[in-house]
Amino acid sequence: MTELTTKITNLLGVRYPIIQAGMVWVSGWRLASAVSEAGGFGVIGSGSMEPGFLAKQIEKTRAATSRPFGVNVPVMHKNAADNIGVCLEKGVSAVFTSAGSPKVFTKRLKDAGIKVIHVVPSCALAKKVEAAGCDAVVAEGTEAGGHNGYEELTSVVLWPSVVDAVKIPVIAAGGVADGRTAAAALIMGAEGVQVGTRFALTRESSASHDYKKAAVASQEGQAPLYLRRFMPTRALANPYLERAIEAERRGASREELSQILGRGRARRGILDGDIQEGELEIGQVSGRINGIPAAAEVVQKMVDGILFAVRKLEHVTRDEAAQLNSNDKRPS
Amino acid sequence: MTELTTKITNLLGVRYPIIQAGMVWVSGWRLASAVSEAGGFGVIGSGSMEPGFLAKQIEKTRAATSRPFGVNVPVMHKNAADNIGVCLEKGVSAVFTSAGSPKVFTKRLKDAGIKVIHVVPSCALAKKVEAAGCDAVVAEGTEAGGHNGYEELTSVVLWPSVVDAVKIPVIAAGGVADGRTAAAALIMGAEGVQVGTRFALTRESSASHDYKKAAVASQEGQAPLYLRRFMPTRALANPYLERAIEAERRGASREELSQILGRGRARRGILDGDIQEGELEIGQVSGRINGIPAAAEVVQKMVDGILFAVRKLEHVTRDEAAQLNSNDKRPS
Repeated sequence: MTELTTKITNLLGVRYPIIQAGMVWVSGWRLASAVSEAGGFGVIGSGSMEPGFLAKQIEKTRAATSRPFGVNVPVMHKNAADNIGVCLEKGVSAVFTSAGSPKVFTKRLKDAGIKVIHVVPSCALAKKVEAAGCDAVVAEGTEAGGHNGYEELTSVVLWPSVVDAVKIPVIAAGGVADGRTAAAALIMGAEGVQVGTRFALTRESSASHDYKKAAVASQEGQAPLYLRRFMPTRALANPYLERAIEAERRGASREELSQILGRGRARRGILDGDIQEGELEIGQVSGRINGIPAAAEVVQKMVDGILFAVRKLEHVTRDEAAQLNSNDKRPS
Repeated sequence: MTELTTKITNLLGVRYPIIQAGMVWVSGWRLASAVSEAGGFGVIGSGSMEPGFLAKQIEKTRAATSRPFGVNVPVMHKNAADNIGVCLEKGVSAVFTSAGSPKVFTKRLKDAGIKVIHVVPSCALAKKVEAAGCDAVVAEGTEAGGHNGYEELTSVVLWPSVVDAVKIPVIAAGGVADGRTAAAALIMGAEGVQVGTRFALTRESSASHDYKKAAVASQEGQAPLYLRRFMPTRALANPYLERAIEAERRGASREELSQILGRGRARRGILDGDIQEGELEIGQVSGRINGIPAAAEVVQKMVDGILFAVRKLEHVTRDEAAQLNSNDKRPS
């Protein structure tokens, strides 16, 4: 029997510390319920949903799995307050807040018995999440897809930093796509991982098949960060993105970049599958990803991969074990 | 007795798979010999040295330790061929080449029995290193200090990618500064780590004390990448860097940026300690680093930390152990 018990599996009541990131146009009830059914924690991405639509998504998820699942709510989104209302009414297990202050909704949710976890790109913000009374924090490195922090802190630098800065459990995100990368997060002190890109490229993801094919076909270095000064976003290189990056390079103003971006660019890319002119939000790790498997397969392979990596490393470091195990010091 | 045996400890004939990065103005004989004496692999950074000076540095290192050590040679540097000549004449254990083609010097060095290891920022280049006949490859993520790749691949994405792409052993660099980050590299499949920033900020580093103090005092996000389009370099934020970044933002030409950079900017910052107007090359991980210890203490704490992290993770993943250990499959 596989055992992978951390503070996050205990907090969320799941078997594995693998959380599926809530992603716009990608994570509806199909993906969330598939991940939860497989022993991970599925999350509906409400950033692209009207309240009525979100309510139905929660109902469908609950019909498809009896296991816990959650909802991601971008705090500054126009529907945020209404969507939080839906979460309270429907009673999901956890709400992942992001893109805004952790203070806005935490108390209301916690008073209703819902766990609250906030996503941050820096240590400074992680401390604010802890102070706001959240149950855990997601530390997301700049390699992650979609919207990102201005500091561009990478996962290897950010994760141990946040682990040291707060007492609440840390969930590592940004570049986690398989067992090895998940094991790396755990060995640096994270209690769980949040996985976006790998789950965006599964059968149950509601992204268009053209988006999935383009991401799977991409190579290293083809998912750059752009809009670095105004709204850092990581997406797949395509003619639209090249145009925006070229404008940035010649010092384009925020207004000009806003015009190039226009409205509905992410929907056009991710949901409608306009590979040339849509914004194809994706993590840097897409260059490492092959195939479009079922979400349950991603979960199981990740768990197997974590255990395999741990056992392999044990062989490298065998002898000192007993000695270090028996004392309590905490080397840096 | 501590045991940490990998393909890299075997290749280099050292006790620990911890390699000190060769760094301009930072790693002379004092740092290299201290690291080698402590069981790691010390590397003289020849990028700031004339051939006669390098010869004396090698002699002094050999006088200070009987253990193996190496030299880093930036291939495109004006003294590269002469410095390679010095390495051949003096017979060091390994040469780390970087910033140029791995084909230029590898055969001559290998014919003389010297191990050759080349530093790369991408998988595509790692394959060229293997094809050139090098003994190992350093995969360096964009969080590393100093000169960097254009692709801006982060360590968590790059390391497992390179591990999968080549058969020669992979040394992980970029963000490795303590036991946890080193353990993360090993668990992702690296056979060793190359550590720059943490060793630059030790007593034996030949960098100025003012540079060390400024780096230790810095916080997260204060070591940005700049000159992204022409010569990506990571350095500590200061008035000089802000000026250069501001110029980049308004679309400055390569010529204008070259003029802002001028000559001798790294020496001025690192060796002369001009904290305001020098280029203070440093890794993103400087925000996590406190204190200016002896290099031997860094090595020993890193080894202790690796073992501690491995044991801690074992507790999380205990039960499946026997089962997975006993079969041969290789999950992704």
